[in-house]
Amino acid sequence: MTHDRTTAPTSIVVFGGTGDLAKRKLFPAFFNLFIDEWMPVRFQIIALGRKQYSQEGFRAYVLENLKEFSRNNKFTEEQWLSFSEKITFLNFDITGENSFQNLNDKLTAFDVECNSRVNRLFYLSVAPNFIDSVSTSLKKAGMADEVEKDRIIIEKPFGYDKASAVALNELLNQNFKEEQIYRIDHYLGKETVQNILAFRFANTVFEPLWSNRHIESVQITVAEQVGVEDRGGYYDHSGALRDMIQNHLLQILCMVAMDAPVEFESSLIRDKKAEILKAVRRIKPEDINHYTVRAQYTDGEIKGNPKQGYKQEPGVDPNSSTETFVAMKFYIDNPRWQGVPFYMRTGKSMAQKKSCVIVNFKEVPNKTFANGTDSLRPNQLTINIQPEMDIRLSFMTKKPGLDMTLNPVEMVFDYFECAPDSPEAYETLLIDALDGDSTLFMRSDQVEEAWDIIATIQEEWKNGTYSPIYTYAAGSWGPEAANELLSRQGHRWLSATMEDLKEEYDGKTV
Amino acid sequence: MTHDRTTAPTSIVVFGGTGDLAKRKLFPAFFNLFIDEWMPVRFQIIALGRKQYSQEGFRAYVLENLKEFSRNNKFTEEQWLSFSEKITFLNFDITGENSFQNLNDKLTAFDVECNSRVNRLFYLSVAPNFIDSVSTSLKKAGMADEVEKDRIIIEKPFGYDKASAVALNELLNQNFKEEQIYRIDHYLGKETVQNILAFRFANTVFEPLWSNRHIESVQITVAEQVGVEDRGGYYDHSGALRDMIQNHLLQILCMVAMDAPVEFESSLIRDKKAEILKAVRRIKPEDINHYTVRAQYTDGEIKGNPKQGYKQEPGVDPNSSTETFVAMKFYIDNPRWQGVPFYMRTGKSMAQKKSCVIVNFKEVPNKTFANGTDSLRPNQLTINIQPEMDIRLSFMTKKPGLDMTLNPVEMVFDYFECAPDSPEAYETLLIDALDGDSTLFMRSDQVEEAWDIIATIQEEWKNGTYSPIYTYAAGSWGPEAANELLSRQGHRWLSATMEDLKEEYDGKTV
Repeated sequence: MTHDRTTAPTSIVVFGGTGDLAKRKLFPAFFNLFIDEWMPVRFQIIALGRKQYSQEGFRAYVLENLKEFSRNNKFTEEQWLSFSEKITFLNFDITGENSFQNLNDKLTAFDVECNSRVNRLFYLSVAPNFIDSVSTSLKKAGMADEVEKDRIIIEKPFGYDKASAVALNELLNQNFKEEQIYRIDHYLGKETVQNILAFRFANTVFEPLWSNRHIESVQITVAEQVGVEDRGGYYDHSGALRDMIQNHLLQILCMVAMDAPVEFESSLIRDKKAEILKAVRRIKPEDINHYTVRAQYTDGEIKGNPKQGYKQEPGVDPNSSTETFVAMKFYIDNPRWQGVPFYMRTGKSMAQKKSCVIVNFKEVPNKTFANGTDSLRPNQLTINIQPEMDIRLSFMTKKPGLDMTLNPVEMVFDYFECAPDSPEAYETLLIDALDGDSTLFMRSDQVEEAWDIIATIQEEWKNGTYSPIYTYAAGSWGPEAANELLSRQGHRWLSATMEDLKEEYDGKTV
Repeated sequence: MTHDRTTAPTSIVVFGGTGDLAKRKLFPAFFNLFIDEWMPVRFQIIALGRKQYSQEGFRAYVLENLKEFSRNNKFTEEQWLSFSEKITFLNFDITGENSFQNLNDKLTAFDVECNSRVNRLFYLSVAPNFIDSVSTSLKKAGMADEVEKDRIIIEKPFGYDKASAVALNELLNQNFKEEQIYRIDHYLGKETVQNILAFRFANTVFEPLWSNRHIESVQITVAEQVGVEDRGGYYDHSGALRDMIQNHLLQILCMVAMDAPVEFESSLIRDKKAEILKAVRRIKPEDINHYTVRAQYTDGEIKGNPKQGYKQEPGVDPNSSTETFVAMKFYIDNPRWQGVPFYMRTGKSMAQKKSCVIVNFKEVPNKTFANGTDSLRPNQLTINIQPEMDIRLSFMTKKPGLDMTLNPVEMVFDYFECAPDSPEAYETLLIDALDGDSTLFMRSDQVEEAWDIIATIQEEWKNGTYSPIYTYAAGSWGPEAANELLSRQGHRWLSATMEDLKEEYDGKTV
């Protein structure tokens, strides 16, 4: 297999090398990239952790995880062996100077081996409070000084509000150049999310429709069926607004709403995304209740099993006011989107696992089908992100038969059918980072704008002056207030599948 | 089963009741309408013919044909019996006054039986040269004088050039009111053709794209795989221009290009169609060769069987200059379509049986996918009329994988899947005629404009000053000149299926 991009020799350093992310995502991603021959010809992976492992012990641990978490578990002994010999485990104390000295030695040794100062990729899979000391130590030891070669990957959360995000960015910018910093939002690595830009800008038929002239509203749903599980302690200090809206949903909003970049180039794309975030209307405290709905799940049933309420979950404060569900609407105050509501909702313990974007077009503007005005369903474009991966356009056709009766049907393109074994988001993002392509990563201004957008909501919800916390039964689609948010404007949450559409529709003769 | 429209009691009179059309289309259509309970509660069918049949003999003949030609051959004895008792055979001499008197008696008898002057539908399935005497006799006997109740159905050809069409219309208008005359083009009764209007005007997403702003060209293909078979004698005096372009293809052009009628009402729709025909650019004699290609099939192979050339077909003049294939382009000189070529082709003994409309959109206007400009395939909307019945929209997506590589895919709506047993065109048209709905029939002005459009071509081809007659092998897609007609403008005939699209496309990395 040959690829158009071959990346330079690289030392990969994983802070948190024995952590959950490394186990489930990073090593499987590196391994799949290796098998598919995307990795640099020369590379090493140094896993840092506080646990004690022999080299053999750590490699055995990685192998075990690969078997469980890699999408590709039909690999040969030979493939594993040649991959595993690239892995070094290094016992590491983040606060210890010796640790960084040891790491530096390993990096330098690999440079010597390669006869050149190779690229370095530092993956900071550590708790937010360690980012300060790690980045300062990297700087101090001069380990990431080559702007062109050395990159730092940071995982969310990028702060917990605007001020902390600004502080974090300042800290990072003291130690590294902005172009060295790769802020991961793994949602952006998903095939179906990446495809939004291709879909919009590599075709001529969608962009002319893509504005308030033809679009009535846009809906973005990221629903999880799982609850907080064993992460109650963490989640209770975060909540859906901070954990999902501020990053994943606003990023998807950017992909859907942004103008076309002049070229498909990282900084131009990120400029266009940032423009959207800047144009998102800030919500005044007294309007919060008109724009947002927050709720917590209570006892319910999911897939036939009883599910306990949020306040009973382990690690959660029984008096918690943390939201596990948010529904809200945004407006984008630019000429293209003026007046078009972007409805968003996300939640845990919901009826289905479902991420999708639904573009709801305006009603048919003329009376051609005179008796039919009521029965004509507006066109709907659905981009299913997960678990379904497809694009659907609903439209009206003549129902076969002797009358001119209309009914809604749909055209479907199934993305998944084309590539049942498509790469995982982390593979995409890691190869991009290795390659120095920051298109799918978030720039500091994007992060700060996103925090700015939700700032008044965070503030108001903390005070709770205007905004009740609703409840919803686990396994439902959220509280009734989330429906009222839309029905107030004559809208409703739309179904992403035709089966549901058909049910709600009964054709009438024209 | 109940329907929204129940038609009034009707006497149906089929001139040419023992002919081929009655056998294959009309009786099966009436019978299917009867089984599906669309026929009026009270009706009779009087079949007129010069052959000698007893009533039993004729009914047995109809039954035999139903078994062979009806889409619905699972009917009960009881259904057949109650249908057959509505049928009367009447030995008939078109030129004999007695015959019309006998017919009048039968009609009057049924009126008496029904206690009212019932509706009358006269189907003139006769050779063109008999239309004069039949309609004059009907008029003379006063059999079709009730404008609201009595309708005349005429089959093509409606003349053989503009002058003869005008003469025919004048003749008909002497005997009947225009609103009584139903000129059948069975193509307009096809589900997929009728659906063009629903598709365009019951949706908001297509009409904004439907103009020279976004469409590069439109292609209409009506290809037949059969040759002239046993109709060589007739066909040799007609040819593809007169037999297909003047009616079917120009009618489809109207459906594709017309503006939206204010309401879905017969005369408004026909007004809009007539506007298109008026706006079609007339071709000057000296430009004929630039706009048209005519050809005759020669020996070839179809479905593995040898097929003889047109000039060797029975009934065809060995020196015939009649075209069995036409490719041409039209322009519609109105603001919506200025500059957009409408390419048409039709022929006999072609590679496939295939009727479709392909809307070819413009190229992506920006450089977003910089390296990709060459490899981006413009969007294509395909409306397959027959034998496939589907609507397909091709578009570019990201190819799943680690690169931003694009490839064309398509969304498909399969009309046939929704209604594998949808009504035949004649059923639709007959129930419309019974119901007095003339939407799908051609008005005199449409017919005359269509002849006017091809008038200079007819004239020039007769003289043959500028236009060679090309040849093409039976079983091919026509002569090379038909490809040059398009390539001269940087276009080419497009494939209606994705398989073919994929073959011609090799994705490139962006």
